[in-house]
Amino acid sequence: MSTLIKGGHIVTAVDDYLGDILIEGETISAIGASLDAGADRVIDAAGKYVIPGAIDPHTHMEMPFGGTVTCDDFTSGTTSAAFGGVTSLVDFCLQTPGQSIPDALATWHEKIERCPPVIDVGFHMAITDLHDGGRLEDVAQVPEQGVTSYKLFMAYKGAIMVDDETLFRTMQVAARTGALVMVHAENGDVIDVLVKQALAEGRTEPRWHAATRPPHTEAEATDRAIRLAHLAGCPLYVVHVSCQEAVEPVAAARARGWRTWAETCTQYLFINEQHLEEPDFQGAKYVFTPPPRPAHNHELLWRALQTGVLSAVSSDHCPFRISDQKTLGRDDFSKIPNGAPGIENRLHMLHHFGVRESRITMSQLVDLCCTQPARLFGLFPRKGTIAVGSDADIVIWNGEKPLTLSAASHHSNIDYNLFEGTKVVGAPEVVLLRGQVIVEGDELVAAPGAGRFVARARFGEQLQPAHEERLART
Amino acid sequence: MSTLIKGGHIVTAVDDYLGDILIEGETISAIGASLDAGADRVIDAAGKYVIPGAIDPHTHMEMPFGGTVTCDDFTSGTTSAAFGGVTSLVDFCLQTPGQSIPDALATWHEKIERCPPVIDVGFHMAITDLHDGGRLEDVAQVPEQGVTSYKLFMAYKGAIMVDDETLFRTMQVAARTGALVMVHAENGDVIDVLVKQALAEGRTEPRWHAATRPPHTEAEATDRAIRLAHLAGCPLYVVHVSCQEAVEPVAAARARGWRTWAETCTQYLFINEQHLEEPDFQGAKYVFTPPPRPAHNHELLWRALQTGVLSAVSSDHCPFRISDQKTLGRDDFSKIPNGAPGIENRLHMLHHFGVRESRITMSQLVDLCCTQPARLFGLFPRKGTIAVGSDADIVIWNGEKPLTLSAASHHSNIDYNLFEGTKVVGAPEVVLLRGQVIVEGDELVAAPGAGRFVARARFGEQLQPAHEERLART
Amino acid sequence: MSTLIKGGHIVTAVDDYLGDILIEGETISAIGASLDAGADRVIDAAGKYVIPGAIDPHTHMEMPFGGTVTCDDFTSGTTSAAFGGVTSLVDFCLQTPGQSIPDALATWHEKIERCPPVIDVGFHMAITDLHDGGRLEDVAQVPEQGVTSYKLFMAYKGAIMVDDETLFRTMQVAARTGALVMVHAENGDVIDVLVKQALAEGRTEPRWHAATRPPHTEAEATDRAIRLAHLAGCPLYVVHVSCQEAVEPVAAARARGWRTWAETCTQYLFINEQHLEEPDFQGAKYVFTPPPRPAHNHELLWRALQTGVLSAVSSDHCPFRISDQKTLGRDDFSKIPNGAPGIENRLHMLHHFGVRESRITMSQLVDLCCTQPARLFGLFPRKGTIAVGSDADIVIWNGEKPLTLSAASHHSNIDYNLFEGTKVVGAPEVVLLRGQVIVEGDELVAAPGAGRFVARARFGEQLQPAHEERLART
Amino acid sequence: MSTLIKGGHIVTAVDDYLGDILIEGETISAIGASLDAGADRVIDAAGKYVIPGAIDPHTHMEMPFGGTVTCDDFTSGTTSAAFGGVTSLVDFCLQTPGQSIPDALATWHEKIERCPPVIDVGFHMAITDLHDGGRLEDVAQVPEQGVTSYKLFMAYKGAIMVDDETLFRTMQVAARTGALVMVHAENGDVIDVLVKQALAEGRTEPRWHAATRPPHTEAEATDRAIRLAHLAGCPLYVVHVSCQEAVEPVAAARARGWRTWAETCTQYLFINEQHLEEPDFQGAKYVFTPPPRPAHNHELLWRALQTGVLSAVSSDHCPFRISDQKTLGRDDFSKIPNGAPGIENRLHMLHHFGVRESRITMSQLVDLCCTQPARLFGLFPRKGTIAVGSDADIVIWNGEKPLTLSAASHHSNIDYNLFEGTKVVGAPEVVLLRGQVIVEGDELVAAPGAGRFVARARFGEQLQPAHEERLART
Repeated sequence: MSTLIKGGHIVTAVDDYLGDILIEGETISAIGASLDAGADRVIDAAGKYVIPGAIDPHTHMEMPFGGTVTCDDFTSGTTSAAFGGVTSLVDFCLQTPGQSIPDALATWHEKIERCPPVIDVGFHMAITDLHDGGRLEDVAQVPEQGVTSYKLFMAYKGAIMVDDETLFRTMQVAARTGALVMVHAENGDVIDVLVKQALAEGRTEPRWHAATRPPHTEAEATDRAIRLAHLAGCPLYVVHVSCQEAVEPVAAARARGWRTWAETCTQYLFINEQHLEEPDFQGAKYVFTPPPRPAHNHELLWRALQTGVLSAVSSDHCPFRISDQKTLGRDDFSKIPNGAPGIENRLHMLHHFGVRESRITMSQLVDLCCTQPARLFGLFPRKGTIAVGSDADIVIWNGEKPLTLSAASHHSNIDYNLFEGTKVVGAPEVVLLRGQVIVEGDELVAAPGAGRFVARARFGEQLQPAHEERLART
Repeated sequence: MSTLIKGGHIVTAVDDYLGDILIEGETISAIGASLDAGADRVIDAAGKYVIPGAIDPHTHMEMPFGGTVTCDDFTSGTTSAAFGGVTSLVDFCLQTPGQSIPDALATWHEKIERCPPVIDVGFHMAITDLHDGGRLEDVAQVPEQGVTSYKLFMAYKGAIMVDDETLFRTMQVAARTGALVMVHAENGDVIDVLVKQALAEGRTEPRWHAATRPPHTEAEATDRAIRLAHLAGCPLYVVHVSCQEAVEPVAAARARGWRTWAETCTQYLFINEQHLEEPDFQGAKYVFTPPPRPAHNHELLWRALQTGVLSAVSSDHCPFRISDQKTLGRDDFSKIPNGAPGIENRLHMLHHFGVRESRITMSQLVDLCCTQPARLFGLFPRKGTIAVGSDADIVIWNGEKPLTLSAASHHSNIDYNLFEGTKVVGAPEVVLLRGQVIVEGDELVAAPGAGRFVARARFGEQLQPAHEERLART
Repeated sequence: MSTLIKGGHIVTAVDDYLGDILIEGETISAIGASLDAGADRVIDAAGKYVIPGAIDPHTHMEMPFGGTVTCDDFTSGTTSAAFGGVTSLVDFCLQTPGQSIPDALATWHEKIERCPPVIDVGFHMAITDLHDGGRLEDVAQVPEQGVTSYKLFMAYKGAIMVDDETLFRTMQVAARTGALVMVHAENGDVIDVLVKQALAEGRTEPRWHAATRPPHTEAEATDRAIRLAHLAGCPLYVVHVSCQEAVEPVAAARARGWRTWAETCTQYLFINEQHLEEPDFQGAKYVFTPPPRPAHNHELLWRALQTGVLSAVSSDHCPFRISDQKTLGRDDFSKIPNGAPGIENRLHMLHHFGVRESRITMSQLVDLCCTQPARLFGLFPRKGTIAVGSDADIVIWNGEKPLTLSAASHHSNIDYNLFEGTKVVGAPEVVLLRGQVIVEGDELVAAPGAGRFVARARFGEQLQPAHEERLART
Repeated sequence: MSTLIKGGHIVTAVDDYLGDILIEGETISAIGASLDAGADRVIDAAGKYVIPGAIDPHTHMEMPFGGTVTCDDFTSGTTSAAFGGVTSLVDFCLQTPGQSIPDALATWHEKIERCPPVIDVGFHMAITDLHDGGRLEDVAQVPEQGVTSYKLFMAYKGAIMVDDETLFRTMQVAARTGALVMVHAENGDVIDVLVKQALAEGRTEPRWHAATRPPHTEAEATDRAIRLAHLAGCPLYVVHVSCQEAVEPVAAARARGWRTWAETCTQYLFINEQHLEEPDFQGAKYVFTPPPRPAHNHELLWRALQTGVLSAVSSDHCPFRISDQKTLGRDDFSKIPNGAPGIENRLHMLHHFGVRESRITMSQLVDLCCTQPARLFGLFPRKGTIAVGSDADIVIWNGEKPLTLSAASHHSNIDYNLFEGTKVVGAPEVVLLRGQVIVEGDELVAAPGAGRFVARARFGEQLQPAHEERLART
């Protein structure tokens, strides 16, 4: 099977040119000014951008949290993703405290077997319990399974939060195994005190979610994680940086040449703490963590993306229905399941408000959503770029297509949309995964199972085409 | 009883002039160009500096630690202090984990009753156990007793280290009660891991004390304490800052206008990590915490004193004998009692290497050792300056007197001296406490009990002459 | 002649106590809790602050500028000063381009002979023309005359601006002679271009004064002067820092331990660029240089005063009447004489908005307006403090006295007041200069000539009581 | 004519893969996993890197300076370049003070006509004299000629240095015309004073070249240029940053999001100030400007390249023979012509010490030497990358080829080599310019004239294949 994408405006993290792309099997076999290869299928991309399939390195499918479970499974969640131009995601396999690491990993593999994805899927290992260090060797084995990043939570005290000993010991393992350490950086102790005090004073509405997680709880934990990773000698990736206070220690570390990277998420560029005050408990839609911040942070985060202080934008897709899940916290903001949907609209929002409004270039969008996530998470160069030999994960993006973002039309199971009613211009027209068209216009043309598990390379190593096969065999 | 100090070169934190000081009772009643008041006693200070008695805000007398007890009690320790020109100290009343706060305080009052001091003494309250928050009200009561600072240890895991919840809750109490929070800022979790790993690898010598407490463990905790204090709304004082990495977050906070102050100690200006390698276990003399650092930090700490980033120099006097106490850790550096003597030589070292070598002025020495400690710890203006109405705590300092620092001649019970053999020029000639001569040349002329407990004012408040009396009555 | 000030609340840059001050002749002979000295005169200061006479290190009396002359001579200007609690000022002796340095100095001495001051007066030497280096030796001689600071203008192109060669050569001389270099830091080349362009576009109103001197023209020159002084090895004092952009290089230099100091002026804490838009040419009242800045700078400047980044507050008193002097620029903002009055209201404003509104303490006010200017300009300890042996330059400040600032009641020749109508609480009640009462309530009780020229010490040296006499004899 | 490059390891600023490149005519027509296109010529690149031809944005061919002329003309200089893997350079057309801008440009076009280049050549316009602003319109016309960058010298007083007025006015023009402003940032006034003083003291040896240009003369001018460009609203490129002091203002500006970029040059990564002390006047080889710095700067500059603070590495090729040109300054270091050769060895040095020693990746080398210079100077995407449609400027780099750098074997006219005797591994094997092989092994296979003038796009615009033609027609 071969496909020829004709005449598109190909944009990578650095390049920008007109050309044809020939796909043979699952990979790109040639790029040319004018390829006439008698392909099985020809897609006309004239007047469209042709970009790498986006990678979402931060999602939570079918994840138990606070007595409920996120409402997208891997089939529904990846379907939503595909409509947003996403062709790979990396989801957090979450160790339940007490559970063994191999069990946790098995649980996640079962999820994608039960609800097969339509895009490719990798896993991070979220470690919550080292069992007094007894599980360190299990942790060390994880990268052998193609799971080459460890996630730790510095918040959610009493649930999945780890102490500095667990954090540091895991970082030391990472330094040895070549894994990347990811942290949710908030000071859980301080937040726990503030939450209890707020509740004791009868402050139960959603807006207290933000008030009890002030920016310096995030900045503190960010600085702490950075220094611990530096001491341990491992690379670090700080997830969902939400405010200038937390950007600053990241910037300082990077200026010193430390191996620190960080992402923000779409919502931190658009949603602010005022949204939590929407009446009738609608503010609960915006209860995600870290919380929405004062609006002046929005432009400062764009600045950090422009100057390279932040390396990526993820979605932190973590959907809980407003109708019957968020309501767990109707009388107690601390019981509102934390999280919001977003996997489908990341490129829509960044293209419209970023590229069209001249905050970033199209190449920067590709870099932030495709190339950098691929590089940092061991998917490059198989994914994250348009180059000969790379997987033919490709989005044909119509830069002029108008779209209104809405829960009524999105493809996730979630019953609300963070950007409800927002009118944007620009959307995917065709999405290919390893050479196969999975989305065409408003149609999903792939079946569940089109996507598969991707064993990722270790930090700093490359994922060559042959690599997956080798790992698959082991 | 009146005393006239004639013709000295009076130096305060700002002023610098020739004059006479008349003392009536315990306080300074007049300062004049030439006072002829028929005083009971006249002391000729011509050619000498006349400075405020120094305050040492950081000492550990008769403190249990690691299975032993510091070898100075309040009588011997304050005698040593007096010979160093120190007329007040503030010692750490240490709550044993499990012990109640009032009990801990009572224990410390007993110590000064049993071994009465020759200089004035105040207490900080070192909090190690809030009993799940149950002791917060006790903590809130402490300032009523004239104990207006709380100390918390972020290191010494498994012993007196507190978690961030205890730290933050105490800070919140401080914000309410007007107490100053002091932190020993090192990341105890990380250090605990590194220590265990070093021991597991057979690394037992004293030099591993420094290797297992790298500078960023201090910098991290410093940054954390600063942000938590800012969130809690209390003033913060970081003790024994030892290196540039930890100076930086202090500098940043102060530039933002936050209520952060910090001290260094004499030893961090002179001792470096190489000292730990002295053969025959002599390196154990330098096992104090934070550890001695690479020598380039010395000039950087002087710089921080010059520019006001650091506000004070204390001794952290914490004496354990090399002959039979430090030896507890002969086969395991982690069992060496942490601490070193220093209360007697702070001014000697700062005057010689600071003032005479033009790193600081004599006024800056007074500011760092007398005025700022008095201000920050609620002793000002009763102590820490030479002004009408202030306590007549005065040192007549002979700026030309040669002295060789040595355990053979110092007055502490400790059997070694950090600066053994160092030749300095400059020493106290007469020391007065509330108008009473306590040291004259090489003689102690005060009896134990000359000094007494001082109830200190809350942070930012002044300790007026009448204040102590009022507190004494309550 | 002796005077006793009874029972005041004496405040210095560090101390704060109740006491009596005995003055004999021109100096303070004793300070006591209760002095009964049979003085010739007794002043009751109960309930009042007793502070050092303020020093204004930045004034322009009878200065030719832009075709006119500032409207205060040394008699009227110092009278205004005295009513504001100022007992010494240092005025800029301005070398007319082409004029010799000794001639310039002689001209300024003639001014104080012709219009004798009521407070003490020193001079800075403002150097505008080195005559190709031929006058460097004259420059080197100036400190011998007690004129121990050089001022250079980096702005006013075509008039008194110097190029970097003149600036740097003068700095090198200062490094040798012990003089302090002062700079007016604005990039005159850039401003000259912007002014010409604005005028060419018909933009003639006062508000273009600010628009053509954007903050980075000040920041750039500030950074330049700091680095040049560091290269030359001389101490530097940046005058009239007006905005955060210019504070930053000062802060950076001080953090590096460089010998950089800077002042702001009262007006930069209160006046903003909107004032320039007052109708009917009234905006011209606020045409001073650097110009008023956006209002957010006000709190940032207070912050810089609090944290010690800025060391002093001066007035930059430079009065041109709105009725017939400012009008020179009615049709061309660049012809409006630059400057505003302020010598009388500095303490009023800082006490009311600084001390009473808790931005600074009374001790900080004394430090910023008295002690630091005295230290930096070679007047300390003779002036700038209340200490035995110091000149009895003393202000008895009634902290509860209400006052409305107004041109109708101030004592300068100027016909407007920058703070017209502002109601403050706090004003001088009695002002003494070297023991002589010069202001009592609303009365000037000193005759012109009560003040005299003060030969100042070199940078870092002290001005002892005997010093002046010695200089007077030479 | 078509050429097929088979099986190489293709590296761009972001990508990294194995593939074939098909060149048709002057451009790349296809890239494929395996292209069998019956090309006219096939080059086997197996085991070799295939990278974009390097761009040197900073050279001085046949430039008059200090009474002599650089010893490479465009034929010899570009030959040397080609052997170093350079396929385009941008040379400084230098306006002689007094000369008109069009004349200067005509002079430079004559140079490339007389001595035709073997690689492509663009020009920057170095402006030294605006003739009181009279030439501003000429300056504005220059970008129309495809010369889209202005260079100004802040040093070389009395020769080509401009004052801030000229600098700022040119920046304003640039903001209007879309040109990039380049500055040689050193404070010429200060340096002029220091040089004269050194000579007056008999200090004539080469090492005084560095002593009279201390780092803060560079840092100051760098900060000044950055702020002036920001005020004028034009993009700025600081050439030849040599030391950490000058890196800092660049880093600060970039963190603020200002449009500031900067390069360093190969020599600042390897040569230090000690080299100037080589005996027998051999130190004169290292007399370039800014001068070699203390060696600790080397790793700090590498760090700045790694973190993106510096965007490019150029050669500043400016060759003066040691035998008979540098000797002009045998008795006076200030008369030594400033400059050194380097166009041939930039990639050799960066590949060996950068890539092989793991300071940078091969992609970073491409970014620093090819892609960023192309982007910043209006050559992208025609040059600076390997992409369909781009010029086939390609280097086949043998990463294992050993080479000893030496004047005996290099191809410039210059009689010494800065890195004489340095053994490196890695060198070009084949170099193609617009599809034509120009270097093959040790042979130059192109004739003079193979290269041609390139009209560059304005800053931020792209140079499309058709662009040159269009410009050529106008």
